[in-house]
Amino acid sequence: MSIDPAPRHTAQGANLQRQFIAPLAVTMGDPSGIGIEITLAAWIERHQRQLAPFAVFGCVSTLADRAEAIGVKVPIQRINETSAAAAVFAQALPVVDIPTPAAVLPGLPNTANAAAIIASIERSTAAVVRGEASAVVTNPIAKNVLYASGFRHPGHTEFLGVLASQHHPGQVFTPVMMLCCEELRVVPLTVHVALANVPGMITSSLIATTVRIVHASLQRDFGVASPRIAIAGLNPHAGESGTIGAEDEAIVRPAVRRLVGDGFTVTGPHSADTLFHEASRRNYDAVVAMYHDQALIPIKTLAFDRGVNVTLGLPFVRTSPDHGTAFDIAGRGVASAESLIQAIKLAGAMAQSRAAETLTA
Amino acid sequence: MSIDPAPRHTAQGANLQRQFIAPLAVTMGDPSGIGIEITLAAWIERHQRQLAPFAVFGCVSTLADRAEAIGVKVPIQRINETSAAAAVFAQALPVVDIPTPAAVLPGLPNTANAAAIIASIERSTAAVVRGEASAVVTNPIAKNVLYASGFRHPGHTEFLGVLASQHHPGQVFTPVMMLCCEELRVVPLTVHVALANVPGMITSSLIATTVRIVHASLQRDFGVASPRIAIAGLNPHAGESGTIGAEDEAIVRPAVRRLVGDGFTVTGPHSADTLFHEASRRNYDAVVAMYHDQALIPIKTLAFDRGVNVTLGLPFVRTSPDHGTAFDIAGRGVASAESLIQAIKLAGAMAQSRAAETLTA
Repeated sequence: MSIDPAPRHTAQGANLQRQFIAPLAVTMGDPSGIGIEITLAAWIERHQRQLAPFAVFGCVSTLADRAEAIGVKVPIQRINETSAAAAVFAQALPVVDIPTPAAVLPGLPNTANAAAIIASIERSTAAVVRGEASAVVTNPIAKNVLYASGFRHPGHTEFLGVLASQHHPGQVFTPVMMLCCEELRVVPLTVHVALANVPGMITSSLIATTVRIVHASLQRDFGVASPRIAIAGLNPHAGESGTIGAEDEAIVRPAVRRLVGDGFTVTGPHSADTLFHEASRRNYDAVVAMYHDQALIPIKTLAFDRGVNVTLGLPFVRTSPDHGTAFDIAGRGVASAESLIQAIKLAGAMAQSRAAETLTA
Repeated sequence: MSIDPAPRHTAQGANLQRQFIAPLAVTMGDPSGIGIEITLAAWIERHQRQLAPFAVFGCVSTLADRAEAIGVKVPIQRINETSAAAAVFAQALPVVDIPTPAAVLPGLPNTANAAAIIASIERSTAAVVRGEASAVVTNPIAKNVLYASGFRHPGHTEFLGVLASQHHPGQVFTPVMMLCCEELRVVPLTVHVALANVPGMITSSLIATTVRIVHASLQRDFGVASPRIAIAGLNPHAGESGTIGAEDEAIVRPAVRRLVGDGFTVTGPHSADTLFHEASRRNYDAVVAMYHDQALIPIKTLAFDRGVNVTLGLPFVRTSPDHGTAFDIAGRGVASAESLIQAIKLAGAMAQSRAAETLTA
């Protein structure tokens, strides 16, 4: 197999044909968490890190208060249209104001602000659907805070799937979570599921659906012309020819065979322990893993604070930092903005790649 | 917690008080695999890599033939007693001859040689039990080759446990597998088990027994005065307070609590995905993981060809390279000797640590 020298973190095709893209829409996340301050930090590093212009959908006064609390100088410019962000971005942080009704205390989430948190996600999504924004970058939310105000979705990702369907009536979207860093792209087939329930959830059709979505995204969003996807086995040593658990031979291998028959470059089931070292990573563009820890252990071991969560399978680009609200350190200005910065960079690169494809098509 | 600056690969106390140790005993493993040639390669690097003297328990003519086949010059000196290896080692590879009755063809294992392969393990073990050797380093075997000649043990490790009991009548040993590299020491609580069967095998007593053996070995073999052991959770996010699977709260956490009550420095259950990055690794001396891939993904991602397999819980030191016979590349001289070299270095350091402890006691 050929060696792919390009970092996985960038959309490889994007640099070849640089397109104008609309600003990115960044949600506020839970304002009592670290989202507010890492967003301020990202804007401060906009030039050095070559970030695409973005607009924050959040509370102007909360942003200003937090900037003062953590001792950073960030001029904030209220805007009405996302498109205005491009002209403002170099001099000030452009914000579409979504006021939080209750006081925002770092580390102390308040359910009274849940509606504003949800509105930030909804309006960001609406902006990207209308083409005013080129991608959504979401800051972390705390689901239990939103549940208290009637939020009924298992998480951010599923909510975005529902919003996408509202904007595209009659279409159903299957959001697929991918974790990306410079060294690796990996998709867990099951996510927040008890380990005992994982084997029963691995089906041929889940593998096939996921591989098709990953393949399409590698081409469209990451500029990989001929995607190579490696499938991890469920059991140790991928079941060692069926002697350690039946699933790898009964389910995974036939699914791989059918996908190969359909023209996809898919390999596996691979022994998961030897799939993530440097030499092995040269053989694929993405891994589909069977469960949470099998996917997240390698990426967090390699790139703890550089990982980006990408949602594939939506009609728009969505990325987010690969961490939570971190209420325990919020308001102190010590949170690392690295994962958010990487999420913004990747969203910009993916949007570039889509824009280039649209022009070419 | 304190930051531990010493590489985990060495026994930290060993350098403080350097003791004379007897030579190491290296088994031949399956002579049709790569064991023979990586052993020759390790001897060639003995000075550069500062390896402790070792004796090979293997076939003199097979070693000579393989050296010629792969084009390396290694003078071989037949010895009768392991102790003779020390004087010979600088000039020649010391070998206790165990002739293989059938021709040895690289890549083509022959069951006619099974008895010699087993004898190599038995005689190496006997040498270390008698104190003539200070540790056993085993080259890879192919279990199906040995099964054909009546071998009845699940693997190398269990066989060594039985041999240990034969030499120490009335004692039962519980061999525990640890994987070591410079960055990480990790023990899988279950090993070659179908993922579906893992949750049912995790018990409080298995956790307690394993932690006690790991703690004792960290002190005795690795020179860690006050071992800190981190326990990985079974489920994603260690079960997120019992909302993702019950086992982490019902089994793992009570086991940790009891061990802490008994005076051990044990923490967990920890979310496994965030347990293996650089900053996290400073907080423990070893991890006890719940299953094969949870333990082996991080170590093979960090140190693919530098990992060493160590058997704890035996009355002697045993290490081995963390790979198999590699029949597919045997006889070509292309196999990496790195894992065997690391296994030899670690066995020497562990033996030093035990010798120092014995003197101090």
